[in-house]
Amino acid sequence: MNTTGQYLEALRAQPPLVHNITNYVAMNVMANVLLATGASPAMLHAREEVGEFAALATVLTVNIGTFDGEWLAAMEEAATVMTEAGKPWVLDPVAVFATQFRRDAVARLVALKPTVIRGNASEIMAVAGAEASGQGADAGDSVEAAEEAARDLARQTGAVVAVTGEVDFVTDGARAYRVENGHAVMPKVTALGCSLTGVVGAFVAGIPALEGTVAALAYYGLAGERAGARTDGPGSFAVAFLDELHGMTPEALSAGARVRAV
Amino acid sequence: MNTTGQYLEALRAQPPLVHNITNYVAMNVMANVLLATGASPAMLHAREEVGEFAALATVLTVNIGTFDGEWLAAMEEAATVMTEAGKPWVLDPVAVFATQFRRDAVARLVALKPTVIRGNASEIMAVAGAEASGQGADAGDSVEAAEEAARDLARQTGAVVAVTGEVDFVTDGARAYRVENGHAVMPKVTALGCSLTGVVGAFVAGIPALEGTVAALAYYGLAGERAGARTDGPGSFAVAFLDELHGMTPEALSAGARVRAV
Amino acid sequence: MNTTGQYLEALRAQPPLVHNITNYVAMNVMANVLLATGASPAMLHAREEVGEFAALATVLTVNIGTFDGEWLAAMEEAATVMTEAGKPWVLDPVAVFATQFRRDAVARLVALKPTVIRGNASEIMAVAGAEASGQGADAGDSVEAAEEAARDLARQTGAVVAVTGEVDFVTDGARAYRVENGHAVMPKVTALGCSLTGVVGAFVAGIPALEGTVAALAYYGLAGERAGARTDGPGSFAVAFLDELHGMTPEALSAGARVRAV
Repeated sequence: MNTTGQYLEALRAQPPLVHNITNYVAMNVMANVLLATGASPAMLHAREEVGEFAALATVLTVNIGTFDGEWLAAMEEAATVMTEAGKPWVLDPVAVFATQFRRDAVARLVALKPTVIRGNASEIMAVAGAEASGQGADAGDSVEAAEEAARDLARQTGAVVAVTGEVDFVTDGARAYRVENGHAVMPKVTALGCSLTGVVGAFVAGIPALEGTVAALAYYGLAGERAGARTDGPGSFAVAFLDELHGMTPEALSAGARVRAV
Repeated sequence: MNTTGQYLEALRAQPPLVHNITNYVAMNVMANVLLATGASPAMLHAREEVGEFAALATVLTVNIGTFDGEWLAAMEEAATVMTEAGKPWVLDPVAVFATQFRRDAVARLVALKPTVIRGNASEIMAVAGAEASGQGADAGDSVEAAEEAARDLARQTGAVVAVTGEVDFVTDGARAYRVENGHAVMPKVTALGCSLTGVVGAFVAGIPALEGTVAALAYYGLAGERAGARTDGPGSFAVAFLDELHGMTPEALSAGARVRAV
Repeated sequence: MNTTGQYLEALRAQPPLVHNITNYVAMNVMANVLLATGASPAMLHAREEVGEFAALATVLTVNIGTFDGEWLAAMEEAATVMTEAGKPWVLDPVAVFATQFRRDAVARLVALKPTVIRGNASEIMAVAGAEASGQGADAGDSVEAAEEAARDLARQTGAVVAVTGEVDFVTDGARAYRVENGHAVMPKVTALGCSLTGVVGAFVAGIPALEGTVAALAYYGLAGERAGARTDGPGSFAVAFLDELHGMTPEALSAGARVRAV
């Protein structure tokens, strides 16, 4: 068994408490995805407690999908707690290209030193300051077109940057990997990208950020492949996907992960 | 193939960006329903960006299910952007009969000229100023009892009005249609009415409002019939329903749509 | 048929309007669970209407999962309406052990005289003032360890107290029951505990609180057993669970309920 499966085994042996400040669309799916993976999810965001709770968490994820000014303040407070404590946190800059409010918010969050930044190609290009073309929350650019922006962003920020799409690209600015697992129906199920951010959080809770992110993406994509192979539409896919995340053994993950250094 | 199927084909050929300000219960289901249909959904509501984003959207839908005063202000701002730009928007006056806050809010939203108003019989009667009897968010009146109120409301507002129930009724005040597709288990799955409002939005993005609304209702009801025929309860129905929305061909829709002019 | 099945029959014969102020993760699942049970759910929380709506409801449930200060004020207002009208309401003190904000909020809500308090072992111990050890929203204590705290809390508050876990424990301070129905996969599906609080609300709407709570737990756990017996993971379980809640007959419930007075 190679390290990918060992990482999943390690995660399940010591389930991380993953604190997520995420969007309303994703909350339920993300909690189920994290439970199926073997982590312990918690969703809360109120200014009155968010810092106190972040101090208890193993890892934090922040997603701006349906945020507002109040939520942004909570995100900043929780992220600061994590960074000051030396604990990892993951940023998901949903649709950052769409409005000035999002661009400004993400600039503030990036300044708080996320451990990992995960987005689609257009999102990563926009965070890196490159010209991006998305529609709504969907990428209008290919992963390949975002690779240079991802490397730049990783170097600028010190974060591991993951560009997810048909083939994922992960880099820390020096090293880089492509992860080829996945299934074509995944973009037809809402919140799977957002929920992947939670899984990245669960993996980097106890594993170095670059390796943990790559393992999370392979695990997630492989579960998608297996679910897609036995379903016929986005509704039945989503159900089978949770079962596959839950039923995945470390051995199956090591055998099925398709990761290449580039 | 008649026009109903052609409308679905046209929608999928040029996926509209559907901006939804909807309730917390419906957000995830509605996004999945819109993805399965072939549209591109976006859920966001913050005052800081809602107008800027509405300007990018093809169509807007507004649903007051779990709103508050802040959300109402965002709804008004986004609706104003659409009306001033000559772009369509759809209003879903959830449980308008239940509280004074809802009645007042819907009066303000109706004044902003929605393209389509979709509700159950009690909701449409209440918006039209007729005596209505609902419980919680459920209709206590039959669709037939709401037909005259629907015609009045369409004439007063210039909107297409859709009363959905066992048999749906759609009118622009002059012409009217009944749509007989549907399945008895649909009211046992939460947020299917709310999500239908999103599908109406997707159809009227590029199709005249009366025809687009009728086609959306037939498509939705037919997918429900097909899902209901092969499942045995609301849980499995909801899963099959997404698969059927996704798998529906234009030909199957044209063949199965049961629409009558009245 | 014993009384457990009769209670389910009575609930369905006169569907209660269950007003839920709950968390974002649970809203959709809880509404579906209540519809499948045969109740009429409503989710709303805005200060502008929450008291007016509570006055229309048969029963209220309050869950602090993702609350903030504004939501707490709405919860207090709605709970006051119920208590002053002599109508039942149910409190779900999610993760009360985690932060000071939660401890203070629950103290205020308990002072408003909930009819039933439902939580996991660590939550009930924390509300009762005992030392508790949870992680995130998950219990770190056994149901057995919480029994004395549950009896104390029931005596202090006059509420029926339900500690749910592998075997549930329900007490009014004098009498007590264990409910042994359930399935091991249930903690792997998010919001099933929260949604159970809604079902408890539906049952105690028309049934004395101790008997209604016990019946709700048996019904819920039995549906879980039946769903678990024919599925293979948390995704397919969640789907089958809704079907089983919906398809459960009063006869099957009476036959399958495993309740013991202790």
